[in-house]
Amino acid sequence: MTYIEELGYNAAKAERTLMSASTRQKNDALAAIAEALIANSQLIIENNKLDINTAIKNDMSVAMQDRLTLDESRIKAIADSVLELVKLDDPIGAVDSGSIRPNGIKIQKIRVPLGVVGMIYESRPNVTVDAAALCLKTGNAVILKGGKEAFNSNKCLAEIMRAAIEGSGLPRDCIQYVSSTSREDTTELMRCSKYVDVLIPRGGARLISAVKKNAIVPVIETGTGNCHVYVDSSADLEMAVDIVDNGKTQRPSVCNAVESLLVHKDVAEKFLPMCKERLDRHGVEIRGCEETLRILGTGAKLSLATEEDYATEFLDYIISVKVVNSLDEAIEHISKYSTKHSECIVTKSLDAAEQFQREIDAAAVYVNASTRFTDGGEFGFGAEIGISTQKLHARGPMGLRELTSYKYLINGNGQIR
Amino acid sequence: MTYIEELGYNAAKAERTLMSASTRQKNDALAAIAEALIANSQLIIENNKLDINTAIKNDMSVAMQDRLTLDESRIKAIADSVLELVKLDDPIGAVDSGSIRPNGIKIQKIRVPLGVVGMIYESRPNVTVDAAALCLKTGNAVILKGGKEAFNSNKCLAEIMRAAIEGSGLPRDCIQYVSSTSREDTTELMRCSKYVDVLIPRGGARLISAVKKNAIVPVIETGTGNCHVYVDSSADLEMAVDIVDNGKTQRPSVCNAVESLLVHKDVAEKFLPMCKERLDRHGVEIRGCEETLRILGTGAKLSLATEEDYATEFLDYIISVKVVNSLDEAIEHISKYSTKHSECIVTKSLDAAEQFQREIDAAAVYVNASTRFTDGGEFGFGAEIGISTQKLHARGPMGLRELTSYKYLINGNGQIR
Repeated sequence: MTYIEELGYNAAKAERTLMSASTRQKNDALAAIAEALIANSQLIIENNKLDINTAIKNDMSVAMQDRLTLDESRIKAIADSVLELVKLDDPIGAVDSGSIRPNGIKIQKIRVPLGVVGMIYESRPNVTVDAAALCLKTGNAVILKGGKEAFNSNKCLAEIMRAAIEGSGLPRDCIQYVSSTSREDTTELMRCSKYVDVLIPRGGARLISAVKKNAIVPVIETGTGNCHVYVDSSADLEMAVDIVDNGKTQRPSVCNAVESLLVHKDVAEKFLPMCKERLDRHGVEIRGCEETLRILGTGAKLSLATEEDYATEFLDYIISVKVVNSLDEAIEHISKYSTKHSECIVTKSLDAAEQFQREIDAAAVYVNASTRFTDGGEFGFGAEIGISTQKLHARGPMGLRELTSYKYLINGNGQIR
Repeated sequence: MTYIEELGYNAAKAERTLMSASTRQKNDALAAIAEALIANSQLIIENNKLDINTAIKNDMSVAMQDRLTLDESRIKAIADSVLELVKLDDPIGAVDSGSIRPNGIKIQKIRVPLGVVGMIYESRPNVTVDAAALCLKTGNAVILKGGKEAFNSNKCLAEIMRAAIEGSGLPRDCIQYVSSTSREDTTELMRCSKYVDVLIPRGGARLISAVKKNAIVPVIETGTGNCHVYVDSSADLEMAVDIVDNGKTQRPSVCNAVESLLVHKDVAEKFLPMCKERLDRHGVEIRGCEETLRILGTGAKLSLATEEDYATEFLDYIISVKVVNSLDEAIEHISKYSTKHSECIVTKSLDAAEQFQREIDAAAVYVNASTRFTDGGEFGFGAEIGISTQKLHARGPMGLRELTSYKYLINGNGQIR
């Protein structure tokens, strides 16, 4: 058995216990994890320092170093979010539907765990705990493969969690960590369909695309968001400025941030200068079509948009802008460039709102609200393991229920066909 | 653009119309398809004869030739099954859930089509019509890639359907057929994630495994069923004989047929001879463990089971048999060899039934009923596009709802974060 097969085998074996664990047992294990994280704060911080030192040696940006850093208050916050999960309803065992067929067999459709989840992610070590806790709550064994930048932090967090759940009566192999930075091991994990039921990659476009290309295990694609706001001819322009500004500047590095602005020609002359004035406060660079530049004139942070700009998820203080002749043209443009994450129209027209929500194919389609709301917490799920941009299984924010599958229980008294 | 990209591009374009089509429009198109199939029976039969002639030249078995053959009554049956779909509820547009968040944004989760479905299948030409009609009813554009044995039949059926739906106002490109027998084209279809949202392979284990290996597009794995019946110590033995016999012999070539029999040691002496007597009537070959052979003696259709036999989906009049010491051993054995399709326990014990249904990880887990019921029709779905053996998205029989995804519609009045 290879190293990865061994992890898989052990995870699958642990899963046979975990899938039948009671909610109380799982909640006790979560509480034990939270407690152990706090109790071992110093150990975590020491291991985190090893990663930070490597990061400094490798000239990692200060922003990235900050994302990597764990201190007591951050560890406390991570532990608190584990405790939050205790309060949430356990989706496992819920009966989705049931019926008695004409021949008398009773069919029930009940929620079960997915099984063994492979999480492949980058940089931030809190994902190690978040993902493990979400999987535990939903009865899924998890194999964690974090980024090499956080290797020591992740390994330490995983070991603490493994010891903690064992103390509460669940097999420590419910949580496994790939203690290797070899690319071959990661690829093998993606192809280990004998033991792994689903892969959830979390990270940049390159990571997601590598997983899609190499995986045999079914994948839930997450994260890429080339999100648009379309300002209709009937829009409340003040509202539109707020929504574009919030979507672009409140947190530019996240997948539900706005990357592209489309403006109806009838309001472009009035709206674009208003919008630019607000975006200027955050130093947002505008890459616009010719009409945009004609209206806004020239300036330091103004340039002509290329085809590639419209296709780019900047994750930065940059926005592409296009003036369109109609709602149809806006929908056409979005359909061409959208990553099917979150799209928004600002309008007062019922017809326009309905057409936009009907014809735009995206996980979340907004009328008069910021795309920044595409988030498990904002949607009221209580927790989130990622935002799916595919249409199979789960779409949009994924909470606890999206980490489950179902099975049919059929009871008869001797029926045959 | 390559040939496959062109099909994908056209399908995605047609999908933009189809996804907003009304139920009436889609039902009219289905009725038009049924009518056109009947009206063009002679043309279909002529094209089918081309395939049959090739099959004869290639020494295809008579059974396989029969599966390939279309005559007037079979075409009528195919058209009738299209009309059956007209009567079923349209899942598209249904609101799964909805809420108003504390900040006043309204969130609705509504059912939408998957988008563009790639169907890759073998031999029987009726799948061409079934799949296209199911996709049409659920608002999905479809790209059909059938087996080369049925190339002329499939192409003819697809052309008739394309013309028929255009007559009823939907773009003919809602249904596309890969008019090529090149393996490269099939592989390209599996990797065409730019235009194709999901692949559903239907066929033998080799086809399914090739699709899993090569696909970048998300796949719904269907079909392989190494199904077990476990006869518990408390079982009604007459009932157990009926269930094993029905599962093994009523239609051995299908995925929900029984391939393996496990018997508790306390009833093996009595049960195995009873069961053998019934299976003998259909000439079923038994491959048993040593204990099985000790009880049943020797005979022409009796041999020692190998490890491989327990892992094999025979799809034939062959069954593997093992005497086990306990329910736990039965569950252990099934967990090792199961393809997670359908598994059955025959028992009078409530404890045994509950433990089996809780611990067996399969799409359908039966107590005292034949595994042959794992079927969209038997489950009351009205139609079926296949039986999923994966846990992502859909599990077990897939009806109309399993051909849908969802999106979130969010309506606000200027909310920002």
